[in-house]
Amino acid sequence: MTAIVNHQWRLAARPVGVVKRTDWNFTEEPVAAPADGQVLVKTLYLSLDPAMRGWMNEGKSYIPPVGIGEVMRAGGIGKVIDSKDPAFRQGDFVSGTTGVQEYSLVAAKQLARVDPRQAPLPVYLSTLGMPGFTAYFGLLDVGKPEPGQTVVVSGAAGAVGTVVGQIAKIKGCRAVGIAGGADKCRYLTGELGFDAAIDYKNADVKTGLRDACPQGIDVYFDNVGGEILDIALTRLARHARIVICGAISQYNNTTPVKGPANYLSLLVNRASMTGMVVFDYAKRYPEAVREMAGWMAAGRLKSREHIVEGLQTFPETLLMLFSGENQGKLVLKVASE
Amino acid sequence: MTAIVNHQWRLAARPVGVVKRTDWNFTEEPVAAPADGQVLVKTLYLSLDPAMRGWMNEGKSYIPPVGIGEVMRAGGIGKVIDSKDPAFRQGDFVSGTTGVQEYSLVAAKQLARVDPRQAPLPVYLSTLGMPGFTAYFGLLDVGKPEPGQTVVVSGAAGAVGTVVGQIAKIKGCRAVGIAGGADKCRYLTGELGFDAAIDYKNADVKTGLRDACPQGIDVYFDNVGGEILDIALTRLARHARIVICGAISQYNNTTPVKGPANYLSLLVNRASMTGMVVFDYAKRYPEAVREMAGWMAAGRLKSREHIVEGLQTFPETLLMLFSGENQGKLVLKVASE
Repeated sequence: MTAIVNHQWRLAARPVGVVKRTDWNFTEEPVAAPADGQVLVKTLYLSLDPAMRGWMNEGKSYIPPVGIGEVMRAGGIGKVIDSKDPAFRQGDFVSGTTGVQEYSLVAAKQLARVDPRQAPLPVYLSTLGMPGFTAYFGLLDVGKPEPGQTVVVSGAAGAVGTVVGQIAKIKGCRAVGIAGGADKCRYLTGELGFDAAIDYKNADVKTGLRDACPQGIDVYFDNVGGEILDIALTRLARHARIVICGAISQYNNTTPVKGPANYLSLLVNRASMTGMVVFDYAKRYPEAVREMAGWMAAGRLKSREHIVEGLQTFPETLLMLFSGENQGKLVLKVASE
Repeated sequence: MTAIVNHQWRLAARPVGVVKRTDWNFTEEPVAAPADGQVLVKTLYLSLDPAMRGWMNEGKSYIPPVGIGEVMRAGGIGKVIDSKDPAFRQGDFVSGTTGVQEYSLVAAKQLARVDPRQAPLPVYLSTLGMPGFTAYFGLLDVGKPEPGQTVVVSGAAGAVGTVVGQIAKIKGCRAVGIAGGADKCRYLTGELGFDAAIDYKNADVKTGLRDACPQGIDVYFDNVGGEILDIALTRLARHARIVICGAISQYNNTTPVKGPANYLSLLVNRASMTGMVVFDYAKRYPEAVREMAGWMAAGRLKSREHIVEGLQTFPETLLMLFSGENQGKLVLKVASE
């Protein structure tokens, strides 16, 4: 074991605004042997998520921040290369919080087995992983859409948004996506079956929502915050539900977050705005995997991953999320199976 | 009938910021006889409410704005002096939307009978009227407090706030009020049984909430919006419910409403923010009257009205709501019983 070197990306400094290369340290250390109850995992794929930006900040949130000097937190898919726990053995494929590194020692009880025959491995970081679970529970448990209602999702071409819109269609709703760029919008309506897509980079969102939601918005699933949340508030239907899943437009802010000035629309429309964190649904992940894998097998739910190769590209690849360059779930490939 | 003159306050112009005397016209016209199904009501007491400011603005809201030239909308308590409907007869005391005038013709089906033996008439504009119903349904149906939880209410010394805090106590919660001035705060803790009161005019609300809510806020009932809503968001407990009832701090704004910059606390705390409009509960008003009259009779719920006399004082009396001069529900006495 001592011959194997583990390369890692560690947090060097708390970023101000957009993350810079100097906020990271690329380090190496020898791989240690697993202790009892631990599993040594070789990282194959890493999930790159907007939420990672929040984990780099000081302060209270839904999980503790990554400490300075610590390996950056990330969900990953890997292969077991050594196990000191009866639940896993060499060659198993697993999902867990591996961190941005080539090898990790993970407590067996914090790993889940994944089945490469059910879906390609990167899909377990996408539709059959956190983003898919976020969409599934956020839309169905918090948004509670009913057949015939209108569901609007921002960040619609992203890993969460694509699943939100497709589940909305499966549930008999009208699905409207807000995304940046004509390509993404064509993808939503052309390939994923969204009823309408609004290109916020080239069209007026207020007009777009008025045209696309003649009966108003029943469920607004918000991934972006900022101006788009504020516009969506002006188009709510009576008893609308807003699901606050994220606010990517605000994550790199160096000025205070822009609060939704139109929040009194909640009063006028007897509407609600509710925050959700996917980890609260951990016990129900298997239910989501089962149902979504079924929809995927039936061709009703499509998953798209945007795979970039090479652990060393991590700092630049992460930034693609904030410039909106990725199409589908952004995955970093660290090693081959 | 033609001998009786009806004095009225009509909206002359859409106010910008604080309502000015020139936004009103004081007019008179002869009283007409009721048509079939109508009742002629002599106004005794009028309810002055923060929501009236919103009704004076152009634009979509939960009810249409008062038109220019129209008699200002107001809820009132009156005495029937003529009736063309079998449901009411001369001498009955009634509650309804009488408007800011001495006499009104109201459809019988839009009136409710009130019983002066059960409570003094002004109480039907207060704890046994809209403000009480707002507190009752907003706290119990939207806020859903559980015994042992912490309920915070802003505008706590107002007609809604006093009832919210007292019902919270009746339901076994910790009740914390935010109000302006030492007198109001003493009233809340000394006479109404609130556990703590924070004087936002003379103390730091953030520190006050930290001290008064060591376990965080489970239910925040918001009447004021603005800065205080933003501070409350930083002190939420997990799964907190914010009830958006009003935003008096923003009603006279000439600049855009200040959105709650800390709204992402909803996400961190899996919390919700829900708007409520009391009219949605109209069918259940009798239930609220019954239960609250019972609490009042048992000495568990106190009602305080701030009565100002004289229809002609209406423009200046209304402004007391926004300067915070009133202690308890602001009522305009128009005539004696």
